Amino acid sequence: MKKSNLTALIGVLCFGATAVAVNALDAQTYQSVRNEPIQPIQPAVITEPEKVELGKMLFFEPRLSRSGFISCNSCHNLSRGGTDNLPTSIGHNWQEGPINSPTVLNSSLNLAQFWDGRAATLAEQAAGPIDNPLEMAYTHTLAIEVLRSIPEYVDLFEGIYGTRDITIDHVTDAIAVFEETLVTPNSRFDQWLLGDDEALTAQELRGYKTFKEIGCAACHYGEAVGGRDFHRMGLVQEYQTENPSMGRYEVTGKDADRFSFKVPTLRNVDKTYPYFHDGAVWTLEEATDIMAKLQLGRELPQEDIDNMVAFMKTLTGDQPQITIPLLPPSRPNTPRPKPFDSE
Amino acid sequence: MKKSNLTALIGVLCFGATAVAVNALDAQTYQSVRNEPIQPIQPAVITEPEKVELGKMLFFEPRLSRSGFISCNSCHNLSRGGTDNLPTSIGHNWQEGPINSPTVLNSSLNLAQFWDGRAATLAEQAAGPIDNPLEMAYTHTLAIEVLRSIPEYVDLFEGIYGTRDITIDHVTDAIAVFEETLVTPNSRFDQWLLGDDEALTAQELRGYKTFKEIGCAACHYGEAVGGRDFHRMGLVQEYQTENPSMGRYEVTGKDADRFSFKVPTLRNVDKTYPYFHDGAVWTLEEATDIMAKLQLGRELPQEDIDNMVAFMKTLTGDQPQITIPLLPPSRPNTPRPKPFDSE
Repeated sequence: MKKSNLTALIGVLCFGATAVAVNALDAQTYQSVRNEPIQPIQPAVITEPEKVELGKMLFFEPRLSRSGFISCNSCHNLSRGGTDNLPTSIGHNWQEGPINSPTVLNSSLNLAQFWDGRAATLAEQAAGPIDNPLEMAYTHTLAIEVLRSIPEYVDLFEGIYGTRDITIDHVTDAIAVFEETLVTPNSRFDQWLLGDDEALTAQELRGYKTFKEIGCAACHYGEAVGGRDFHRMGLVQEYQTENPSMGRYEVTGKDADRFSFKVPTLRNVDKTYPYFHDGAVWTLEEATDIMAKLQLGRELPQEDIDNMVAFMKTLTGDQPQITIPLLPPSRPNTPRPKPFDSE
Repeated sequence: MKKSNLTALIGVLCFGATAVAVNALDAQTYQSVRNEPIQPIQPAVITEPEKVELGKMLFFEPRLSRSGFISCNSCHNLSRGGTDNLPTSIGHNWQEGPINSPTVLNSSLNLAQFWDGRAATLAEQAAGPIDNPLEMAYTHTLAIEVLRSIPEYVDLFEGIYGTRDITIDHVTDAIAVFEETLVTPNSRFDQWLLGDDEALTAQELRGYKTFKEIGCAACHYGEAVGGRDFHRMGLVQEYQTENPSMGRYEVTGKDADRFSFKVPTLRNVDKTYPYFHDGAVWTLEEATDIMAKLQLGRELPQEDIDNMVAFMKTLTGDQPQITIPLLPPSRPNTPRPKPFDSE
């Protein structure tokens, strides 16, 4: 067993929390020794373990959906890199979602949430799917009524927020604080950044060199290797897609923002297929080839693509160790799920 | 933290397995000191931790379904007493299932699987939903093709079964061995059976006395408090339902088996609502009232119902502590999910 996993389990034993935990002193050692556009991921520092635990329950809570079947984890599956590995997601009544579900992993490092950045914070994002008729298809009012009817939840919220009067803001705050723990430090690339010269192979280093030289790091940089800017999808050549999303334009209304999307993180990119906002591309090789052509006007030789893919696979970090929450049962006055009821 | 949870976590550390673990010596202490029709649940003894771990991965593996969205855990949710808490389940393309999903918890103690007992073993049961067009809607051939395309799975199967030629029998065997660990020992009722006179309140003991005196224990007995026999639903009075299932008759073709169903376990019954094979009844109070009338010809006073419900709530045991598995990514040759494709 790796030391980092052991640390996580000891975190479970000591704090009742479930993310990779590290104390503040350890965190100081997570500084890059190299001058690179990518910085190592800082392990989560858990200061409110009870809130993290409540947030985890809510993240796995299907009763926040109309059907009683869909939870945050349905589309941001923590067994699968925080995604559903589908082009677009399955929502209430098997409706087809409009856009690819981005990973929840390291989402706290994004400048904003959703592909178009319409949510400024994780809490604001978390409120969206609950009452989106294409997704969980519930209402905030009913979701809160469910939680208020379950004494164990009321006690937990009271212990954390000091009131038995649960609100949607408490719910999304707890989910956001849980999501902040879903970082993936300790990838091989980060080990290299932290000074381990043996952490990467010669091919992976060649791939990283090409990645920087041809310009990928202009957008894919920072701790999350992306997530810091919005850019037009198809700078040099137009991107061909059947997906109708206009991206950032739908938020700002500015012509310059047409087809502009948040640069996705490349952390754990080996796990977060299929790629792009329409989820149309299934392999890293193809995605790399397309991005080089469309964004950089480059026709890459296969060897460069292979090297860059080898580099990108070193961005898979330690996945959060999650003990599944035990959800308290509904009570007679709990609003009942309506999976098949059309009204 | 309770000692039993700590034991489970140490099990994780030492064996890489995730169920409540106990060594053979400890198991000898789980003998009832009382002469009762219900026996205490024996904690799982894990002898093949690698197989348990593989079985857990497969239990949480949505790529065993056509959509890439539905796993065993979707309908037998280990956060929710091993059920989906829906009257009948949601299957591929949001199809409505024909019958209530029974809990997977303690299912190894059943005489057979499914409400009609059509599967003799857990492994036989596990094969069913994968290619049931109403459920996961895949084929065994494609499910195996998915696993064979993923090197990490091939290595795991080879390590356990000695061959890289994965078969559906390996898959269902591993799932079954994982499911055998999903027992829930250490309920308050079991603590009482094991000799702790303080484990139950006077009301709970009165409820248990009534439970035996009026005849419930004729069917609900043994380790699982049920699961050992088939009986007609509606012995004294007919059960009114819109559910078309003929129960055991569909397996045997014998008239005597019409509307005969496997007696469900009452273990964790507080968590496994809604009740009966049609999932029509949401509260334990109502279920108790109906069963007394239909099976025993009894009109119970509210006090007896309340006492019996109090007793039944003491049957909630330690829930399995499950660390969610990290599923290896698909590869370019992995068959892709078809969530919306109708062909």
